Amino acid sequence: MKKLINDPNDVARETIEGLVLAYSQYLKQVEGLQVVARRDAPVAGQVSILTGGGSGHEPMFAGFVGRGMAHGSVAGNIFASPPPAPILAAAKAIHSGRGVLFLYGNYSGDVLNFDAAAELLEMEDIPVKTVRITDDVASAPPGREEERRGIAGDLFVIKAAGARAEEGADLAGVTTAAEEANANTRTMAIALSSCTIPASGKPIFEISEADMEIGMGLHGEPGIRRGPMMSAEQVGAQLVEGILADLPALRGAEVAVMVNGMGATPLAELLIVYRAVHRVLAGASVSIVRAYTGNFATSLEMAGCSITLMRLTPLLKRLMLAPAESPAFVQV
Amino acid sequence: MKKLINDPNDVARETIEGLVLAYSQYLKQVEGLQVVARRDAPVAGQVSILTGGGSGHEPMFAGFVGRGMAHGSVAGNIFASPPPAPILAAAKAIHSGRGVLFLYGNYSGDVLNFDAAAELLEMEDIPVKTVRITDDVASAPPGREEERRGIAGDLFVIKAAGARAEEGADLAGVTTAAEEANANTRTMAIALSSCTIPASGKPIFEISEADMEIGMGLHGEPGIRRGPMMSAEQVGAQLVEGILADLPALRGAEVAVMVNGMGATPLAELLIVYRAVHRVLAGASVSIVRAYTGNFATSLEMAGCSITLMRLTPLLKRLMLAPAESPAFVQV
Repeated sequence: MKKLINDPNDVARETIEGLVLAYSQYLKQVEGLQVVARRDAPVAGQVSILTGGGSGHEPMFAGFVGRGMAHGSVAGNIFASPPPAPILAAAKAIHSGRGVLFLYGNYSGDVLNFDAAAELLEMEDIPVKTVRITDDVASAPPGREEERRGIAGDLFVIKAAGARAEEGADLAGVTTAAEEANANTRTMAIALSSCTIPASGKPIFEISEADMEIGMGLHGEPGIRRGPMMSAEQVGAQLVEGILADLPALRGAEVAVMVNGMGATPLAELLIVYRAVHRVLAGASVSIVRAYTGNFATSLEMAGCSITLMRLTPLLKRLMLAPAESPAFVQV
Repeated sequence: MKKLINDPNDVARETIEGLVLAYSQYLKQVEGLQVVARRDAPVAGQVSILTGGGSGHEPMFAGFVGRGMAHGSVAGNIFASPPPAPILAAAKAIHSGRGVLFLYGNYSGDVLNFDAAAELLEMEDIPVKTVRITDDVASAPPGREEERRGIAGDLFVIKAAGARAEEGADLAGVTTAAEEANANTRTMAIALSSCTIPASGKPIFEISEADMEIGMGLHGEPGIRRGPMMSAEQVGAQLVEGILADLPALRGAEVAVMVNGMGATPLAELLIVYRAVHRVLAGASVSIVRAYTGNFATSLEMAGCSITLMRLTPLLKRLMLAPAESPAFVQV
């Protein structure tokens, strides 16, 4: 285990501290908690968006806190959901009087803990709504979309909902935008290597030097199929075709695209994959309005990538093109 | 060699193609060459900045082309300088009549080829100046700064010079700003793992599971010292202290800071290193005006990081805080 860390048990806490120190123009930390908030939170007149989940996916989630993005984020330990108490504290720290939207990836631990915090908020008469992000095509078959996990598509859903909150929409309006964003977003991932949880020092799974896994989750959840390494062309084509088969409405539509690295894959490789994605989408008459490449939703030092497509309805197009300023996502 | 690529000999070309396809709002490609230019080049009224060098350092250099940054970039093959012909073609594609500044890292191959292109430009009466970036403290001792290599500090120097060009300064003014930026910028790096050149399939050096190398160059050039793995606290402290010893004027000054990943190091680790850097700088009465973390100047899939400090003179502070829009560096 070759990592630039200090005590393996302090990784989640020190990551948040480093983020807030580096990006104090956007962020502040809620004292003593793995909670970050917009520096100007609570933001008067805005519904407040709270995101979060396990650590180890940096820059997700805390790196998506800022203007036109989330208002706050709460981080659990590595690959572990944050408990209800810091979720509650985070929500109260960012609430400006117009309600709070909980917006996070669909994992059982997060569902349990965010729901428990929502109950406590309601007891204090703070209105709260929840949208769980379910973009991972590989995690449940069509017809059971609500069982799917949230992966890199979290960024697009947070970005769209954040822009709607910035416009001044009410809690119902921001919730509707988040639901529309989630319903139109799909991701498929591949893993080339495993990753090691710092405190255990052990890889979370084994994979041979000759293989890759299609559909691998952000915590090593098994994918659809393990097989020999493919070329970037083949990876781009298979993942995009998997997404198009799952959401046929993407054909002929305008989209936003993301080629996301899992942590250890260089940008050059992501760009070569993007080149293939672009060609396949052109062949399917899909019109790319905006593309993003880089490390957004990672799994520690896993090698691999994911491809996300969001179908841009008129509302989503406006929201995705809106400006944003946060540590990991800046758009003019 | 587990890489998301197609033919190993096509990596540099396909990377550039992917970049231009993904970021067509900023970039265009000069037909048939590994050359990118600002989409709106030549930009009337501006001195044109041309950067470039070997591929394998993505997003550097082509990812730094855009508004308030470089006007063009020319990419060689992996870790190889581009030849004079595409450098010349790139310069002519971006030149708007106010002259061209060649701005690149100080490597013998790049010096030879950019100098040859400069002679050809002068024969066509296109004014050209050159500033070679020499931020790598470990590559030559004090007193021989002009022999040093350029590494991650390239980003800061390009950003500052690009902002000066955007202000409308003449060729002498942009050159002076680039020289001032280079003179005030220092970087030190560590490597935890090697990387593999796609076409050879072999690691460029070997390093044991227990060791790291301090001062390693972007192409595996030997560093100052190889030794056992250190904690993030120790790495941050040693690299910052090395830089402060080399440029004592940093003490008590305002600075911009970058913690840069070499390609395979997760953002969480860079943030934990940043946390240490922040503490050490506070102890040296260094005031951090702006901090950047992420993968800016990489070595394929090498694990490791570098730390860059730029002392902000009044001119450099204004230039570093100016807005910029490029694939890999956006600032509002």
